[in-house]
Amino acid sequence: MSNNTDSIEQGVEDAQRAALKLATLSEAQRNEALHAIADAIDSHHEAILKENKKDVRHGEELLAKGEYSQALVDRLKLSESKLESISEMVRSVAQQEDPLEKTLTARHLDHGLDLYKVAVPIGVVGTVFESRPDALVQIAALSLKSGNSVILKGGSEAKHSNRVLYRLIIEATSDIPAGWAQHIEAREEVTALLAMDEKIDLLMPRGSSEFVQYIQDNTSIPVLGHTEGVCHVFVDKKADLQMASDVAFDAKVQYPAVCNAVETLLVHESVADAYLPDIVSRYEEAGVEVRGDEKTQSYVEVEDATEKDWATEYGDRIISVRVIDSLVDAIDHITTYSSKHTESIITEDSDRAEQFMRNLDSASVFHNASTRFSDGYRFGLGAEVGISTGKIHARGPVGLEGLTTYKYHLEGDGHIVASYAGEDAIPFQHEEFDGTWPPTADK
Amino acid sequence: MSNNTDSIEQGVEDAQRAALKLATLSEAQRNEALHAIADAIDSHHEAILKENKKDVRHGEELLAKGEYSQALVDRLKLSESKLESISEMVRSVAQQEDPLEKTLTARHLDHGLDLYKVAVPIGVVGTVFESRPDALVQIAALSLKSGNSVILKGGSEAKHSNRVLYRLIIEATSDIPAGWAQHIEAREEVTALLAMDEKIDLLMPRGSSEFVQYIQDNTSIPVLGHTEGVCHVFVDKKADLQMASDVAFDAKVQYPAVCNAVETLLVHESVADAYLPDIVSRYEEAGVEVRGDEKTQSYVEVEDATEKDWATEYGDRIISVRVIDSLVDAIDHITTYSSKHTESIITEDSDRAEQFMRNLDSASVFHNASTRFSDGYRFGLGAEVGISTGKIHARGPVGLEGLTTYKYHLEGDGHIVASYAGEDAIPFQHEEFDGTWPPTADK
Repeated sequence: MSNNTDSIEQGVEDAQRAALKLATLSEAQRNEALHAIADAIDSHHEAILKENKKDVRHGEELLAKGEYSQALVDRLKLSESKLESISEMVRSVAQQEDPLEKTLTARHLDHGLDLYKVAVPIGVVGTVFESRPDALVQIAALSLKSGNSVILKGGSEAKHSNRVLYRLIIEATSDIPAGWAQHIEAREEVTALLAMDEKIDLLMPRGSSEFVQYIQDNTSIPVLGHTEGVCHVFVDKKADLQMASDVAFDAKVQYPAVCNAVETLLVHESVADAYLPDIVSRYEEAGVEVRGDEKTQSYVEVEDATEKDWATEYGDRIISVRVIDSLVDAIDHITTYSSKHTESIITEDSDRAEQFMRNLDSASVFHNASTRFSDGYRFGLGAEVGISTGKIHARGPVGLEGLTTYKYHLEGDGHIVASYAGEDAIPFQHEEFDGTWPPTADK
Repeated sequence: MSNNTDSIEQGVEDAQRAALKLATLSEAQRNEALHAIADAIDSHHEAILKENKKDVRHGEELLAKGEYSQALVDRLKLSESKLESISEMVRSVAQQEDPLEKTLTARHLDHGLDLYKVAVPIGVVGTVFESRPDALVQIAALSLKSGNSVILKGGSEAKHSNRVLYRLIIEATSDIPAGWAQHIEAREEVTALLAMDEKIDLLMPRGSSEFVQYIQDNTSIPVLGHTEGVCHVFVDKKADLQMASDVAFDAKVQYPAVCNAVETLLVHESVADAYLPDIVSRYEEAGVEVRGDEKTQSYVEVEDATEKDWATEYGDRIISVRVIDSLVDAIDHITTYSSKHTESIITEDSDRAEQFMRNLDSASVFHNASTRFSDGYRFGLGAEVGISTGKIHARGPVGLEGLTTYKYHLEGDGHIVASYAGEDAIPFQHEEFDGTWPPTADK
């Protein structure tokens, strides 16, 4: 797609037309196309790595000027083994259970009148994601598996890698309705998408909460936002303290840069004395800066935590600690400051765990487990298109199911509503049964 | 709630606080409150009818000035028997299966690490609906059953009726967390709601597509829109023509004012000669004005149908007719002009029915049945809060399930992600099992 609004509109219209055809492809046709993408990546390592080098070189120039971090350069970089894992991921998407061609419920309304709720693709999905070249392939693969057309907007730092990967995907899927995947590059093109509410069914932006908020404020297209995670671990008075130490350590240190890492550790006052010195020294040995409230500072020597800390996603080796008086106060703190992503309670008391889990309004609430489990792969959803911090349509890690919606199929035999209205109305039966659409008896 | 923005904000904050508590109420507590509402309506007929008379009198004044229709006055009017059916409806909502306290899936991730996807309320739902006083009670009942706080904005023509019904509902639900239902009256108050994206989780406006579009364009809160229905019946070349006549008649005449009534009848050319004279005379006898394209006019004498007719929801005793050459042309016509609400094919050929149903992107697609079946009650969903013409979250008739979302509950035993990463990573098991949360073994 070239860089002007007319051609973007044309591309999105092509995607819309393709979506209607995609919805009618069989699982075998979609899986064959996914294998073709994996094969194309396998047989073009040289071409991909050549283009990727351009992005990496540009990233290193920015790094030298202090405009980029080493971590970001590392994320940009592809390698033979990285490419192998990408094609492997595409094949694993093909192997996943088909989210389509599924009857979700079947209900007899009356004799000869059967209603089927059938899983179908959403249509055209617009995605905006960060500068990892594997993100483009993953999102395209999930969209194809779920029968959706997709608009792909990656980070500009990965533009050469994205271009070659997109070209290979299109070439490999020549049997799929043309136009199903569209690649856009400029911010202005994203702005053009926002006005296309008649043509795009869902936007899935990944990024900062400011960015996602900007998208939400400037479109009437439904948005499935993937924003930041201000996640909590609460060490209850009934906690196994060794477990609490291991989980809190893992939740911060295992991968501090991601949205499901813990940012604030809440500690029940009655275990603060026994717990805090140990966890703080483990954190400090691992290079984690600990900031604490006044009460925390009465147990351990750490920097001040301020109001701002409670609402911050550090995404780094920093953690804030607060000592609280009760389970209710822990729930209150999390309700006030959480981004509703993932919270975990460490306790041996299942009633207190239940109270914590029932009262919190976060997508994922854990008992005796690290917040880092909050992830589509670990949850068994296969790959994920993002982690939704909204509550509508899909919540938490979003896999193939989140890329589907449903249609109602009603099979009748000339049934009219007049028979079910008025004085002599026939009563409905409304009984669920084990049936799938299309009904075979009909054939 | 009084008429200024501060107090609306206060009311919505109260609703938000109440929502957290509502989510933890048992089914018995919610059902008890529903029965209390039904009892309150039963024992206050006189007070309700007195207030309703004010609205009806005002409606009749508007009717006399030509600013209102008799049908609208009739819809406003309550009676003893209407009130009985309203309290009956509230009791039937109480009887419905609980949409909460349900484990949607349970999955072993690994030994001692189990993930539960649990149905929960959405939180705070903002609703805008038309001038039927029963709508306020129905929406409040569905919200309470599904554990949601609700902001109610009814039509101003029903304001006296709405006020007394709202007051009775609040008085009857004094055991429910205060603030769970809020009543607003002015348009400006709706505008104030649109900015409260941190406090309101979902907006459900019912009304014209212009009104719903206005809402969507002016808020970043997710919107579940209930707009118009431009529904189609396609009489295929393989149709049973008597059935086609009965269904097309029912779909228009049984209740022409509603969104699931047919607006355009598509007729396959090969049956046009045998079919059109009969259906047109049946329509005309029932007072339906028929408008046809050029081909239609070569079979029957009717008014011209123009391009504008194809995209119009008449909501009245008018129908447009088009003769088309093929199943593919029928699909194309519907794809171009439909509001994606409900379409029906009349055919004895199940393969052609399947092609029609697979290729159309409408919420409901029917085979040999009247479009008028597209309704929450007839579909067996219980009462409905609306019929969604969007594709995200809920589609078609929306009942209690559409008022829920889900949370992930993970039960572990000190599990950390480090064990599942790197060289010696433990593989996940990812096996679904028949379990419910909270796990009883834990107790």
